[in-house]
Amino acid sequence: MNLLPLIHKKRLKQNLSSQEINAFVKSLTSSKAPPDYQIASLLAFTVANGMNDEETFALTTAMKNSGKPFAYKGFPKNSFFLDKHSTGGVGDKITLPLAPLVIAATENVYFPTIAGRGLGHTGGTVDKLESIPGFRCGLEMSRFYKILKKQRLAFLSQTPKIAPADRILYALRDVSGTVASVPLITASILSKKLSESLNYLLIDLKVGSGAFLTDPQMSEALARQMLNVLRHFKVGGRICMTNMDTPLGHYSGNLLEVYESLEILKGVGPKNSTRLSLEFAERLSEASGISKSESVSKVKAALHSGKALEVFEKSIEAQGGKLASMHKATANSLKLKTKSILCPQAGYLRFDVTQLGTALVDLGGGRMIKAAKIDPSVGFYHPHQTGDRVEKGEEVLKIYYRDSKKLSLALGRLSQAVFVQEDPLEKMPLIVKELQQ
Amino acid sequence: MNLLPLIHKKRLKQNLSSQEINAFVKSLTSSKAPPDYQIASLLAFTVANGMNDEETFALTTAMKNSGKPFAYKGFPKNSFFLDKHSTGGVGDKITLPLAPLVIAATENVYFPTIAGRGLGHTGGTVDKLESIPGFRCGLEMSRFYKILKKQRLAFLSQTPKIAPADRILYALRDVSGTVASVPLITASILSKKLSESLNYLLIDLKVGSGAFLTDPQMSEALARQMLNVLRHFKVGGRICMTNMDTPLGHYSGNLLEVYESLEILKGVGPKNSTRLSLEFAERLSEASGISKSESVSKVKAALHSGKALEVFEKSIEAQGGKLASMHKATANSLKLKTKSILCPQAGYLRFDVTQLGTALVDLGGGRMIKAAKIDPSVGFYHPHQTGDRVEKGEEVLKIYYRDSKKLSLALGRLSQAVFVQEDPLEKMPLIVKELQQ
Repeated sequence: MNLLPLIHKKRLKQNLSSQEINAFVKSLTSSKAPPDYQIASLLAFTVANGMNDEETFALTTAMKNSGKPFAYKGFPKNSFFLDKHSTGGVGDKITLPLAPLVIAATENVYFPTIAGRGLGHTGGTVDKLESIPGFRCGLEMSRFYKILKKQRLAFLSQTPKIAPADRILYALRDVSGTVASVPLITASILSKKLSESLNYLLIDLKVGSGAFLTDPQMSEALARQMLNVLRHFKVGGRICMTNMDTPLGHYSGNLLEVYESLEILKGVGPKNSTRLSLEFAERLSEASGISKSESVSKVKAALHSGKALEVFEKSIEAQGGKLASMHKATANSLKLKTKSILCPQAGYLRFDVTQLGTALVDLGGGRMIKAAKIDPSVGFYHPHQTGDRVEKGEEVLKIYYRDSKKLSLALGRLSQAVFVQEDPLEKMPLIVKELQQ
Repeated sequence: MNLLPLIHKKRLKQNLSSQEINAFVKSLTSSKAPPDYQIASLLAFTVANGMNDEETFALTTAMKNSGKPFAYKGFPKNSFFLDKHSTGGVGDKITLPLAPLVIAATENVYFPTIAGRGLGHTGGTVDKLESIPGFRCGLEMSRFYKILKKQRLAFLSQTPKIAPADRILYALRDVSGTVASVPLITASILSKKLSESLNYLLIDLKVGSGAFLTDPQMSEALARQMLNVLRHFKVGGRICMTNMDTPLGHYSGNLLEVYESLEILKGVGPKNSTRLSLEFAERLSEASGISKSESVSKVKAALHSGKALEVFEKSIEAQGGKLASMHKATANSLKLKTKSILCPQAGYLRFDVTQLGTALVDLGGGRMIKAAKIDPSVGFYHPHQTGDRVEKGEEVLKIYYRDSKKLSLALGRLSQAVFVQEDPLEKMPLIVKELQQ
């Protein structure tokens, strides 16, 4: 397909028709795909000149329809399908405790989630789950539906049948500097999430130094546009803008985050990651049709009764994972070398969370390119949060590492990731802002 | 070279440094050329967000220096090097009579011109000259300097040593929809023309239905920016915005335009093409250091004495061309088939000059892609201009064609190229506006 007519329109700030957008997206997965330089040019003009609501709806629809959205055959009539999407952070293991909490607190709710792998400084749910021995997210669709029907919860890694046009476009956006666009981000996220054929989606839009988007105006615009698109598709939705000015919980690193998730489900997890899991679980339970107060008490019961932990164990087992050995595991069971970073003087702690996440990549616990292998065991312990008062000599970071060369790479990076300052900082609340339809 | 840092800056409307622009342009002709999709993205953001003067200067300089600018060794000390550049039109054979007029009217002036081939609806000087049997523009540099020194006039087709980065960039701009940018057009035109190491450049910026740029605001901005850059390089310059709402002269088509050029030099040419040749010759002569009145009289004398014709003949001969047989040639000597378009009713004539030029491509007399061969003989006779009163049954166009299939293609196109309307039109003056340093 020759994109010049579309490029000229976008250059002149004109709107593309649904037919034009549809033809373009269809061509991407066909033998008539336009040359990369034309796609890059169209994307750059779109980043520069924007898209209106109709164009964004059309792009999302076309990208979703480039694949095969979920079809729930044989599920009960009153089934309610929901999911949570995070724009990505460091230490963000929330999906792991959240999903079983919701399932344990509700009855007719299903939690089908297409999970991603970590890329750049942000982690991914697939990597965390697959650090559990035997666990696999790469399921046949029939197996996925079977597990979902039984457990009401199933994790699937992205397949070529889910919004393949998004995969092609995103790969090019990443290398052509055309990521930063509200309509393009909206269509990318929602084409995948809407492929889950949901009734409700909660979006955790990270803000702060570790967020994918650091411009608050753009975050706000993205939140509004995502709600717009969900409304257009008649899918319920809520955007929670949450604090990524500090890593979530006490651990970052794939296996360490599974351990922390188990702690959360046992009621002994760190304060902020436990609270965010519960807050999200309450919102999702309420969205499925029970009252606010009922959802609060049901989620609390799901946690304290151990029912959520049981749901988690069964789900992991259903996808091949062997959790048994992990129940008593701690960071020390990893048998890795450790290195502590101590507070050089009393003051107030501040993380640059993007640098912290990148240091995890340096250690081998994340990846900069999709094909890279990772070491699931390495990671960080960070007992304090951005804004906390810390005393001289206190441990602000413990590094679990395997390779000394990688450690020194990470240490270099960490000098730009962990700061102690004299003046107090304003702490960002855990949930900064919420937007609802 | 990875262009992402430059792309991010341009996306955020920041200015690129001279070092960044230089590194980018240098990489284009190296083994480290960036991928096409990154170049296209950078170009699109540049089209959308612009470039300031410093960036435009740096881009022009870097593109000029990607090749080998002319070096005039052994030329007299008081030599004055000048040229004329046209942004391209239909029937625009002005360079052919203009150059000998200037040479015949002056003494210390040299006219070294890098000429282009036709592309799209606009013709090219190389194609016109090479329709003369034996004439070749593809000269070795040593031969070019030798001819220039002797004739004070030489034509060279673009070589890989003249601003090669522009050739690479332009090829990509053409297919990625990133042509329409004042700084990019400025740098493209002037990197080539400044490679001629000139003292003075007259730019014929076409306006009207056949112009490369149809937006008057953009034309005006381009004119000002080109003058800016010439000033920065301490090269004298003038922009003449001229009428391309009507084809120039009475003939379009390569060989037909050589015939018309001879007619102009013999003093029997059509009014508008003769006048534009003389006007430009006067301006260039004056720029070389003689007074306005003197340049008017010297140019007139150069024409009427036959001296300009003699210069032309010698120049053509020096580059291998055999003009002898052409002196008595007319359109009828071409022995082509002809087809006349008659005026269907009395009224006022209007050409869509872009469509007219494209119909010439349909006939085989031009090309849409660089590699295409052309038939130099085919073309049009158009005795009337846009705005002229025409009577029912009068001939408004005569087509010289070789192939009936191509004729019918051209006839289809011409229905969108030649119009007769009841209401009079405002005629555009020959020279619409001039800007000088």
